[in-house]
Amino acid sequence: MKQIESAAEISGEWAATDPKTRTAVLTGVADALDAAGPSLIELADAETRLGTKRLTGELARTTFQLRLLAAESGSYHDVRIDRPDPSWPPGPRPELRRYRTAVGPVLVFAASNFPFAFSVAGGDTASAWVAGCPVVVKAHPGHPELSRRTASVVVEALGRWGALLGLVEGEAAGVEALRHPAIAAAAFTGSVAGGLALARIAAERPVPIPFHGELGSVNPVIVLPGAARSRAEELAAGYAGSLTLGNGQFCTNPGLVFVPSDSPFVGLVAERLREVPAAPFLNDRVASGFHTGAERLVAIPGMREVVRGPGAQLLEVALEDFVPEAAEECFGPLGVVVRYSCLSDVLPVLAALPGQLTTTVHALPEEAPDVEALRPVLADRSGRILWGGWPTGVAVTAAMQHGGPFPATTSPASTSVGTAAVERFLRPVSYQDWPSHLLPEPLRDDNPWDVPQRVS
Amino acid sequence: MKQIESAAEISGEWAATDPKTRTAVLTGVADALDAAGPSLIELADAETRLGTKRLTGELARTTFQLRLLAAESGSYHDVRIDRPDPSWPPGPRPELRRYRTAVGPVLVFAASNFPFAFSVAGGDTASAWVAGCPVVVKAHPGHPELSRRTASVVVEALGRWGALLGLVEGEAAGVEALRHPAIAAAAFTGSVAGGLALARIAAERPVPIPFHGELGSVNPVIVLPGAARSRAEELAAGYAGSLTLGNGQFCTNPGLVFVPSDSPFVGLVAERLREVPAAPFLNDRVASGFHTGAERLVAIPGMREVVRGPGAQLLEVALEDFVPEAAEECFGPLGVVVRYSCLSDVLPVLAALPGQLTTTVHALPEEAPDVEALRPVLADRSGRILWGGWPTGVAVTAAMQHGGPFPATTSPASTSVGTAAVERFLRPVSYQDWPSHLLPEPLRDDNPWDVPQRVS
Repeated sequence: MKQIESAAEISGEWAATDPKTRTAVLTGVADALDAAGPSLIELADAETRLGTKRLTGELARTTFQLRLLAAESGSYHDVRIDRPDPSWPPGPRPELRRYRTAVGPVLVFAASNFPFAFSVAGGDTASAWVAGCPVVVKAHPGHPELSRRTASVVVEALGRWGALLGLVEGEAAGVEALRHPAIAAAAFTGSVAGGLALARIAAERPVPIPFHGELGSVNPVIVLPGAARSRAEELAAGYAGSLTLGNGQFCTNPGLVFVPSDSPFVGLVAERLREVPAAPFLNDRVASGFHTGAERLVAIPGMREVVRGPGAQLLEVALEDFVPEAAEECFGPLGVVVRYSCLSDVLPVLAALPGQLTTTVHALPEEAPDVEALRPVLADRSGRILWGGWPTGVAVTAAMQHGGPFPATTSPASTSVGTAAVERFLRPVSYQDWPSHLLPEPLRDDNPWDVPQRVS
Repeated sequence: MKQIESAAEISGEWAATDPKTRTAVLTGVADALDAAGPSLIELADAETRLGTKRLTGELARTTFQLRLLAAESGSYHDVRIDRPDPSWPPGPRPELRRYRTAVGPVLVFAASNFPFAFSVAGGDTASAWVAGCPVVVKAHPGHPELSRRTASVVVEALGRWGALLGLVEGEAAGVEALRHPAIAAAAFTGSVAGGLALARIAAERPVPIPFHGELGSVNPVIVLPGAARSRAEELAAGYAGSLTLGNGQFCTNPGLVFVPSDSPFVGLVAERLREVPAAPFLNDRVASGFHTGAERLVAIPGMREVVRGPGAQLLEVALEDFVPEAAEECFGPLGVVVRYSCLSDVLPVLAALPGQLTTTVHALPEEAPDVEALRPVLADRSGRILWGGWPTGVAVTAAMQHGGPFPATTSPASTSVGTAAVERFLRPVSYQDWPSHLLPEPLRDDNPWDVPQRVS
C-alpha cells in the first residue's frame, strides 16, 4: 500500500526531528484546519447531521488538541541516565541511557461520532505525530468527503512532511493496512464487535502489534439516597442533558443509572426527555443499531419502558431484576434506570460490571463514608471516576484518563485523550557505553532538545 | 484456585499500602532469602547444575533487585494534577487527578535459567509487588523443590501479607491460572513456542489481559573491519567467554556474529572454544532442544561446522548464504558467525532480523560514521544496543531496558529488568472533582506518600 510505504520511508527522519520542528508542523496543521473551518464544518454537517454548533466546538477542540500536544515538553521520552558505577552490586554497572522513542508507522481507525476530534487529524493522529510516528488513517465511511477534504488540507499544511498522513478507505483496505508489516501499532475508536475483530487480526499477525481499541461503555452513574432526596430536580435536568447531548452518540454517554427506589428521579427525567426533540442519527447504520439495541433491552424481563421518544428513550428496572445484558451499550440516547432499595446491594452489581470509561457518583458531603466504600470498586472498574457532574465532556489535559478495563478499551494501561496519549506510540531503547556524539539528542549530556532527564 | 482467590482477597489492601510498608515487606523478603542462602543455593545447584558460584551471584542479584525496587520513590505512579480552569479551551476544565495504580493479581511464569532472579521471588514478582499487586507464580518444572522451598521462605517472611505469593505447579495449573478471571496481567520468560501459546490464551480470554512475554533472541553482534583487524584476540576471548557463560543459557547470549571475511576472528574463537570444558545443561529438555536446534542450523546450505564441543559449538556461513533460519535461537552455547565482505551488505540483513533483546557493535572510534548509519536499524530492531562489551550481564538499574520488538518480547513498550519494570503492572485512573479527603494518598495535596506530583 503506497500510503504505508510512504509513511515507512519518512518514519526514521520524523522520529529524529527535534521538538521545535514537531511543534511547528503540528501548529501549522492546526492553523490550516482553522482556516479551512467554515467549509469543513459545512461538509461535516452534511455528512453527519451533528449541527454546525456542535461541529464548530469539535473543530476548536481538535485544533486545540493539536496545539496542546505540539507544546509537550518531551517528558514522554522518559529519559533515564545511569552513570557507570564499578561498585554497583552485584556487578559493575556500565553507562546506560534509556529513552522512549517512536514505535514506527501507526494505523488509526477513525470514529463516526467525532468527525474531527477522533478522525483524520484527531487525538490519535496528533499523539502519534508527537511521539514521532507517521500515521495512516482508515477513514470512517460515515463522512468520506470530509475525510478526504481534511486529509488534503492536512497534507498541504504538512508540506515536505506530507507523507506523515496517509488515508485509506473501505473495510478491506483497513484490514490490509492492519496486516501490513510496516505498521507498528494501531488505534481504534468504535464498536465492541468491530474492535474485537481488528484486535484479533493485530494479535494474529506474524509480528503482533499493540492495538489500542476504545470499544464500549455504559458509564454507570450512582445516585446516593441523600443526593436523590435533596437534588432530584437538578440531577434529572443534568442527566437528561447529558443523555441526549449529540443525540447520545458519545462514548461517555451515561447509559446506566442507579437511583433509590423511592426517588422521584425517573419521573422527573421522563418529563424532560419527552420534551427533547427528535435528532438525526449520524447515519442509518447507527440508527438501526440503536433501534435493535433498544428492542433487546426492552425485552429483558422486568424492564419497563418509561419514555419512548421523540428524542430519547428511558427504561427502568428493579435491582432484583438486573441482569448483565441490561448493561450492554445501546449507542444513542437511551438510558436504563436501575432502582435500588439498599445501597449495599448495588456494590456487587457494580463490581460485576464490565470495564467502563467512566463512573459517576452523586452524593451529599455527609454521604462520603458510603462513597468511600464504593470507591475501590469504581476505580477498579473504570478509567475515570467523577464526583458530581456528568461524564460527557472530556477535557483535553495532562491528567485526563480516557480508557479503562476491557471492554472499555483493549489497552488498560493507556489513555486516548490528553497528553498521556502520546505514550501509546513509544517504546524504550537503552544505549550502553555508546559514544556521546552518536547518541540520540535526548540522551546527550548537553541535552540539545531540553527534555527532562533523570540521572542516577 | 485458592492461591488466586487469596491473592484477589488481599489485592485491594496491598494496593493501598504506603511505600514505607511495601519497602519494609520487600526488604524483609530479601533478608529472609539471604539468611536462607546456603541451603537454597545447595538445592538450586542440585536441581539446575548451575554451580554454587553462579548461583551465589544470582541470589545476591535477586535480593539486591528486591531492595532496589523496594526503594523506588513512587515516580511510577506518574501523578498528574490539573487544577480546575474555567477558561480552559474549548470548555471549562474540572479538577482532574490522575495516577497509575495496581492492575490487580499478577501471574508470573518462572524461567528455567534463572532459578532465583526470574523465578519465585525474581524480577517479575518484585516489580508486581512494588506496583501493589499480589503474585501467583507458576513454578518452573526445572527446579520444583527450590521453588517450593523459596516460596515457603518468602511466605514466612511476608507474615500477615503471606497471600501476596501463591505457587502453582504443572502446565495445566498454569493454563488454568492464566484463564482465571481474577488474574489481571501475566509475565513470562521462556521459549517462543511456549510464550506464543500462552499469549494466545491471554488474548482469547473473555476478558483479555496484558501478557508480558520475554521469548527469544540471538542478540546479534557486529564487528566492524577496523576493530576486527586491531582487536581480534581480545574480541575472540570476550566472545568465547560471553557465549559459554552459564553454558550459554542466557536470553542475552550472543548467538549471531557478523565479522569481516578476512578476519582471523573465527579461528581465534575456535581455539578458545575447543578449550572450554563441557558443562551440564539445566535439564534434559534444554539439552535435547539444544542438540535439535544445532542439527537444524548445521543443515542450512552453506553452513560450516567449525567447532563441535566439548563445551561449545561454532558455525560459520558467508553473508551470501545467510537465510532467516540461520538467525533462529538455539538456546545454549552455540554461535553462528556470518562473514561479510562489505559492511553495507550487512545493513539489510540486520534490518530484516526479527526483534532482539540486544545488539552489540564493536568498532574503532574512527569507524563512528559507519556505526551512525547502522544505529537507526539497530535501535529499531532491539531493546538495548551496546558499543563494545558483551550483552550477557544485565545490570539492574533505572536505565536498563530488557525487552524489544517481537519476538524478543510480546510487549515492546516495557522492560522486565530494572526499575521501569514496575510500569507493566499499573493502570491509570483519573479522579474528577473528588473530595480531597476521599482521594487516594498519592493524589492528595498534602501528599502523605511523598511521591512526585506534576501540577498544571
